[in-house]
Amino acid sequence: MHLLADLLVWFAYVGTAVFAISGALLGLRKEMDIIGVSFVATLTGIGGGTIRDLLLGDAPVGWVREPIELIICVVFAVAVSFFNKALVGRRMTWLLYADAIGMALFAVLGAAKAETLGAHPFVAVLFGAMSATFGGIIRDIICNETPVIFQKEIYVSAALLGAFVFIATPATLGFEVRALLGLGAGLVLRLCAIWFDWRMPFPRYADPRS
Amino acid sequence: MHLLADLLVWFAYVGTAVFAISGALLGLRKEMDIIGVSFVATLTGIGGGTIRDLLLGDAPVGWVREPIELIICVVFAVAVSFFNKALVGRRMTWLLYADAIGMALFAVLGAAKAETLGAHPFVAVLFGAMSATFGGIIRDIICNETPVIFQKEIYVSAALLGAFVFIATPATLGFEVRALLGLGAGLVLRLCAIWFDWRMPFPRYADPRS
Amino acid sequence: MHLLADLLVWFAYVGTAVFAISGALLGLRKEMDIIGVSFVATLTGIGGGTIRDLLLGDAPVGWVREPIELIICVVFAVAVSFFNKALVGRRMTWLLYADAIGMALFAVLGAAKAETLGAHPFVAVLFGAMSATFGGIIRDIICNETPVIFQKEIYVSAALLGAFVFIATPATLGFEVRALLGLGAGLVLRLCAIWFDWRMPFPRYADPRS
Repeated sequence: MHLLADLLVWFAYVGTAVFAISGALLGLRKEMDIIGVSFVATLTGIGGGTIRDLLLGDAPVGWVREPIELIICVVFAVAVSFFNKALVGRRMTWLLYADAIGMALFAVLGAAKAETLGAHPFVAVLFGAMSATFGGIIRDIICNETPVIFQKEIYVSAALLGAFVFIATPATLGFEVRALLGLGAGLVLRLCAIWFDWRMPFPRYADPRS
Repeated sequence: MHLLADLLVWFAYVGTAVFAISGALLGLRKEMDIIGVSFVATLTGIGGGTIRDLLLGDAPVGWVREPIELIICVVFAVAVSFFNKALVGRRMTWLLYADAIGMALFAVLGAAKAETLGAHPFVAVLFGAMSATFGGIIRDIICNETPVIFQKEIYVSAALLGAFVFIATPATLGFEVRALLGLGAGLVLRLCAIWFDWRMPFPRYADPRS
Repeated sequence: MHLLADLLVWFAYVGTAVFAISGALLGLRKEMDIIGVSFVATLTGIGGGTIRDLLLGDAPVGWVREPIELIICVVFAVAVSFFNKALVGRRMTWLLYADAIGMALFAVLGAAKAETLGAHPFVAVLFGAMSATFGGIIRDIICNETPVIFQKEIYVSAALLGAFVFIATPATLGFEVRALLGLGAGLVLRLCAIWFDWRMPFPRYADPRS
């Protein structure tokens, strides 16, 4: 139990770093300077968790006193900026997988935090998905890209599934089992979406104004 | 008094539902999948009240523990998605009227909540307008539409008037009278704007850079 | 000490007014009506400090009970709207200098407030920069302009420098000395950027996807 809890904290740092890298890479593509790149990387890395904490009434948010995640974001933003030339032309599919892990992890951790702070189970599932996806949504809105939530990609759905499995698993099974099941469910769905190009099964809508 | 208070709670649910529907319809027009549609519907339905509560220091926000509004938003988003085909080509002018009622209602309820939590009267009026309009502003910014506040439409002004009349009416007249006067003022101004195509009376500005 | 503290409060009002004017002018250029202009002016004037206070857990935010800054924003928005014609064709370089003063001032005041509320020094520097620049960033995102943080302009960097100098100066020297040093550092860097057209010294990045 303690081992897993410690492991999750480290995984959360990895997730933050991965999100920060994805933000930094998008900032670089938009030709920002190092300040802009760090700004986008930081918002992507900590945006989801920060909005979750504000809504849950958990302010001052954690990184105000222990800015580890903040420092992770800035360090990776600077590193990505400096090694940018070495990254040119790389496919960086590993980033896609790292992002999937970060997403599944944040979904479980976000749902767990909301549950701990007394949120309704339905809300805890949403807060898990929020932790996992809002950073990327903010990144895309700021950078004028179409957020993943507005495409038919299975990303938010995978976060919702992971958070749902965590919350739906009986508390009697212990945090370990719940977290592993939630993580697994979110990750597997996301990986299927990546490998088999799964899309949301919904039909195209007719445009009500056309 | 109790009857009206109960009635207002139900009206607020109706207002939330109407806002959620307007968000869902815009999401569908933007060809989002059901997750995106639910996301936009929810932000539209509860965005204004949530930002108001955060600024007033009323966190965790209400729907974290009692997610009735949240569920209303998701249910209507899913319903609109499924019945979308049946809605094609409809003019849906009823939505315009329902939206006017929701707007006037939220303006009064928002001002009342801010007043209760100790806000300055001037701020309470602004918070009424905020409750009534921020959901729609968020919806439009996310969906890349021009928010109503940036057009010369009489919408925010109607919300401001409703909240102002509520706050300006002496407390000795009781909540009932104040709420009805505020509701009426906001609604009438908005309906006039719809029926007679009233616009903000301000002249066009000269462009200071042209 | 008391004199300086009083002076800083007045300077902060001046800074708020300058930010509000810059927001109002942008709103006018976007052909907004007076409500939209006031909205943008207010978000620009108080946006940075409000987000800072929410993250620091200092809610209800200050202007809910003492809406002086809010009133300043609205008054200047209305004034700019009415005197808009008289402003046509003016170069308004004074606005650039007033904005530089407001920026340096908010950087110091924001860092000081975060420090007082127990933030980590690294975070206090970021919060100084946030107070100084988020209002303008919100203004530009809402008005569909490219935020200054995404250009290679030395603006956020100057705010960071001012906040850093304030925080790095030993507390034993007293608030007065720290504030003057921070103010001076931020202002001088910004003025150099304006006069000598200094840019961020970073080379253009290669596009990782091209």
